[in-house]
Amino acid sequence: MSRLTAAAKRFVVGRPFRSDRLAHTLLPKRIALPVFASDALSSVAYAPAEIFTVLSVAGLAAYTYAPWIAITVAFVMVVVVASYRQNVHAYPSGGGDYEVATKNLGPNFGLLVASALLVDYILTVAVSTAAGVANIGSALAVVGAHPVWFSILIITLVTAANLRGIRESGSAFAIPVYAFIVSMIAMLLTGFVRWLLGSEMRAESAGFHLQPEHATAGLALVFLLARAFSSGSAALTGVEAISNGVPAFQKPKSKNAATTLALMGGLSLVMMLGLVGLAIATGAQIADDPARQLVGAPEGYYQKTLIAQIAQAVFSGFPVGFYIVSFTTGLILILACNTAFNGFPVLGSILAQDRFLPRQLHTRGDRLAFSNGIVFLAVVALILVIAFQADVTSLIQLYIVGVFVSFTCSQAGMIRHWSRLLSTEKDPTVRRRMRRSQTINAVGFCCTAVVLVIVLITKFLAGAWIAIAAMAVIFVTMKAIRKHYDRVAREIAADEDDLVLPSRVHAIVLVSKIHLPTMRALAYARATRPDTLEAVTVSVDPKDTEALAREWEDRDLPVALKVIDSPFREVTRPILDYVRRIRKNAPRDLVAVYIPEYVVGKWWEQILHNQSALRLKGRLLFTPGVMVTSVPWQLSSSEALDDRLRQRADRELGLRGRIPSSAIQPGAASEQPGRLRARDQDER
Amino acid sequence: MSRLTAAAKRFVVGRPFRSDRLAHTLLPKRIALPVFASDALSSVAYAPAEIFTVLSVAGLAAYTYAPWIAITVAFVMVVVVASYRQNVHAYPSGGGDYEVATKNLGPNFGLLVASALLVDYILTVAVSTAAGVANIGSALAVVGAHPVWFSILIITLVTAANLRGIRESGSAFAIPVYAFIVSMIAMLLTGFVRWLLGSEMRAESAGFHLQPEHATAGLALVFLLARAFSSGSAALTGVEAISNGVPAFQKPKSKNAATTLALMGGLSLVMMLGLVGLAIATGAQIADDPARQLVGAPEGYYQKTLIAQIAQAVFSGFPVGFYIVSFTTGLILILACNTAFNGFPVLGSILAQDRFLPRQLHTRGDRLAFSNGIVFLAVVALILVIAFQADVTSLIQLYIVGVFVSFTCSQAGMIRHWSRLLSTEKDPTVRRRMRRSQTINAVGFCCTAVVLVIVLITKFLAGAWIAIAAMAVIFVTMKAIRKHYDRVAREIAADEDDLVLPSRVHAIVLVSKIHLPTMRALAYARATRPDTLEAVTVSVDPKDTEALAREWEDRDLPVALKVIDSPFREVTRPILDYVRRIRKNAPRDLVAVYIPEYVVGKWWEQILHNQSALRLKGRLLFTPGVMVTSVPWQLSSSEALDDRLRQRADRELGLRGRIPSSAIQPGAASEQPGRLRARDQDER
Repeated sequence: MSRLTAAAKRFVVGRPFRSDRLAHTLLPKRIALPVFASDALSSVAYAPAEIFTVLSVAGLAAYTYAPWIAITVAFVMVVVVASYRQNVHAYPSGGGDYEVATKNLGPNFGLLVASALLVDYILTVAVSTAAGVANIGSALAVVGAHPVWFSILIITLVTAANLRGIRESGSAFAIPVYAFIVSMIAMLLTGFVRWLLGSEMRAESAGFHLQPEHATAGLALVFLLARAFSSGSAALTGVEAISNGVPAFQKPKSKNAATTLALMGGLSLVMMLGLVGLAIATGAQIADDPARQLVGAPEGYYQKTLIAQIAQAVFSGFPVGFYIVSFTTGLILILACNTAFNGFPVLGSILAQDRFLPRQLHTRGDRLAFSNGIVFLAVVALILVIAFQADVTSLIQLYIVGVFVSFTCSQAGMIRHWSRLLSTEKDPTVRRRMRRSQTINAVGFCCTAVVLVIVLITKFLAGAWIAIAAMAVIFVTMKAIRKHYDRVAREIAADEDDLVLPSRVHAIVLVSKIHLPTMRALAYARATRPDTLEAVTVSVDPKDTEALAREWEDRDLPVALKVIDSPFREVTRPILDYVRRIRKNAPRDLVAVYIPEYVVGKWWEQILHNQSALRLKGRLLFTPGVMVTSVPWQLSSSEALDDRLRQRADRELGLRGRIPSSAIQPGAASEQPGRLRARDQDER
Repeated sequence: MSRLTAAAKRFVVGRPFRSDRLAHTLLPKRIALPVFASDALSSVAYAPAEIFTVLSVAGLAAYTYAPWIAITVAFVMVVVVASYRQNVHAYPSGGGDYEVATKNLGPNFGLLVASALLVDYILTVAVSTAAGVANIGSALAVVGAHPVWFSILIITLVTAANLRGIRESGSAFAIPVYAFIVSMIAMLLTGFVRWLLGSEMRAESAGFHLQPEHATAGLALVFLLARAFSSGSAALTGVEAISNGVPAFQKPKSKNAATTLALMGGLSLVMMLGLVGLAIATGAQIADDPARQLVGAPEGYYQKTLIAQIAQAVFSGFPVGFYIVSFTTGLILILACNTAFNGFPVLGSILAQDRFLPRQLHTRGDRLAFSNGIVFLAVVALILVIAFQADVTSLIQLYIVGVFVSFTCSQAGMIRHWSRLLSTEKDPTVRRRMRRSQTINAVGFCCTAVVLVIVLITKFLAGAWIAIAAMAVIFVTMKAIRKHYDRVAREIAADEDDLVLPSRVHAIVLVSKIHLPTMRALAYARATRPDTLEAVTVSVDPKDTEALAREWEDRDLPVALKVIDSPFREVTRPILDYVRRIRKNAPRDLVAVYIPEYVVGKWWEQILHNQSALRLKGRLLFTPGVMVTSVPWQLSSSEALDDRLRQRADRELGLRGRIPSSAIQPGAASEQPGRLRARDQDER
């Protein structure tokens, strides 16, 4: 049966990838684009709309600034894409922003970037889900009426899928991403052609009168435009993804990655500008507060997303087009959300490797660490979605700080990177190429730094402070963890002469009753042939103890039973005192305490057993010169759990081959694990 | 310093009691009364008022039934007190209702009683607190305006005090209980004298016009009267306490306990009837819904408790009297709430002894179990207080079922008890006495059974179903726990010939790096002189492994290092497989796995260390023929925690001597723990 399910699973999931096989999964550009670009492309779904939303505060007149803002965002995007093309060439090993910042600016900047990225992953989930629901909601009224519930549903489903272990093959990404690209391009083309032909396209909101929320002029207007620009910059989120994934590309890796990056940038650019253009052409109006601002709207008017309104206007005689655009947009946004679920634990694993996070997160395959990361991400994203009522406009306020912190640091790092190389490089052609790259990165740095400042000024009070506070907390925590590990490492560094053998072993078997677990513990303890061996019981209830002593004598057990009085009816203290007494009398002896332990199959059985043993063990470990041995007794219920754990481990192996995670940290992937000859000789 | 605090604590708290010293704490009647009667006496504070509250639904006319209902309740009380006097004589060992029901009716009835009592403890906390706040609120407007908040505050304070470990000496009980008794008697006497003298006493609510909530006649009226009687029966709660505490009385124990019980019953009776009489004499009106029913009341009228209204009327020229009565009433109610905090974990410990609850609750001194019980009790009580808005009338609906379930079962058990004794007893005088006792218990059984049925009928929908459902859940859970323990006990019962010694010991030391914890693990493993010994490392990162192997060789360590490949970059699975392979090749061998473990001082350090080790250990224990040894390495931060844990244990010892808990389960207290001679000889 279990073999059948394993076979079925292998059929569905495919064989698990071994580390030394990962080289076979290198991606051609046509697959790499959807795998790495879903996050960046999907941000087109909300960024242009946000420009209009912010401008709407000043009324319809402000909409005239929209194209200029969009062009500015497009300019920044070109600069950032060009900059990251330099990263891709400089770090073919897949230098993420964290690595670039750490290597070139030092660990503190690396940690800053890492904090920003972690916060960013969370916000990617929240924003993408909220935007996805808004787009699907534009086509499906029931979704639009309950955005929070459907956001919760989507995050829950994506979480569950990731916990179960879904495997994204390239094609699983390719289909929805290309569907989105095709439907968008089709919409933009249709719209452009109809505009050229002078065919009338009117968005459903075109007839309303957009009222300003308050008078805005002078400095306030400048601030508003800066804010619209900040929100529009959300289109840049996800651009860095390809630079993390270079090693997953087919050769020539860097060149292919750079090309894909350019392609992605071009697509984003065209879509964003096209959407802004069509928004103006169709007269679509997106209000910050539709109920109050849109005069002339019918009672209970539901403000569709910008893309949906444009699709409706462009495909006015062809409603299927509207549905296709809405659903493919929703789908790519959910895919972007899923991407964060992959990236978060991977970044965690890298940080754990550098000892900024608990060590166990390092072993990437580890299910528990993996699950903890996923659940943490999901819970925080859910809190955000609920707190901000799945409102994209509110969530965006938190989003962009992190992105631009990491952009800016990365570009600053690249400037240093080139300077370092230039200091040794002699070849004038290479030097010229480097100078060119450095200049591009410098422009990128200036650009992203300016945007970062604008974002900070315009969004701090609107919500960015939450993201900044979260970043600060994460930063400080990671620093503290690293400090702790460093301190411990110093404390436990081995000297040459630390192998002092204890002179004698004094073994103690803890006994509460005579039953099979006790018998096994006695047998095992005897098998180790200690210098002295005694069974110890604590007399909590004199009657029980007397019965035990009698049975012990009747059975003529080969080990002496020692009874420790416990006048205060507790177990731990008397044993601790007894062990310490032994240690005091013979400080060079080793005390080995054998505790019979039940192995159970269900979590609640754990509550019913072993509690005193575990507590005692925990306390015994504080005493130097003591080691504690658990002698397990497998209760019959434990077998089912054992099977279940093995199956789960099998399933886990199926997760290892996930393309994005292996692609993002492929250090081990590119080289064959050097098999060390196992020296399997006996000590004596 | 810590010695100084210990001395200071001993001065404040007193020396901890040893089990063999408990005999010294036997109580004279004058102290036993306040210790055991606070719960029963305090119920006088709400029971009479509840009669009027229920009757008020039918308007002022229905108040004429109040004295008759009070007399009926008084009759039941006399019967119940008389019945429990038989219990006290029959079970001088302090047979609580649980013991009486278990011994005479079987474990299922015992468990039913236990479930009822556990639910009851929770409700005692909720009802007493709410009533206490209502009484204090009658004198202090701020408390009356925020009853829920003050209830939460009181429960939190009592919980904190119990978690810290307060020690109730007899006098800590005596002062507030006698203050309550004296102030109540003073009030009743004053009122009676003024009434005799024809002095006018008018409650502040006397002038209002009490409107019926709806017309009530015929069957509905009967139902209402039955319901008023049910609520009034709340006066009986706590009567059983003395029967639990017989062993704590001075000799002659049973006689003194019976006398105290009679005294308590008499006091309750006088107070209840006196309060009802004065309520009518002063014209006090207690409405179910004051805002709607009390016509003529001023705007924002706060309905004081019945006791407060009577006190105000009786001490009309002497307001200090009113304040004293209100505060002593509030105080005894908080004391009753505290009593439940003592009784709950004690009952839990008895149930754990009978394996109906997790075994670790048995060791009464155990701090963790104790704390868990207290926190559980507090949380559920808080939920109830918040859910019912600290409204005594609503909470009472849940309260009385449990009490009468346990009364009824206990009396039924006593009938059986006497029958059993009568079947062997020959002496006609003794037989006559037994017959008399049996008759009293039979009357008690009939009486309480009838009340139970009335309570079930009149309160089921009003809230009693919640208590019944909770009882059912507790009952089923405890049954399941017992079933589990029985199954395990059968599974692990030792046969005579189970001491098969493993033939050889194959020791494995897990190594990740060369540092002091590893060195210690190696030294300890070597000290046990196993037949084979090897150090094992899992190659997750080939580079790290190579470095480790090189250092291993450079240091020329005396144990061979075996490298296990982990193609999927995980740790647990390869080691498990390796151990299983060893076992397969030599099934009679014992595999001893030595794991270096960090001992840390702070909980978050635990997250940063040992996680992989713990998980591995958990999985290894599933494999038969394996034992797992933790070789501790004490990090410097662990020392502070070690100190702290010792101090906490010291403090715990101070808790052992609590009078109520030791008195209720005194099996061990009355006998000197028979010290078994420790046989401390060496095995070889």
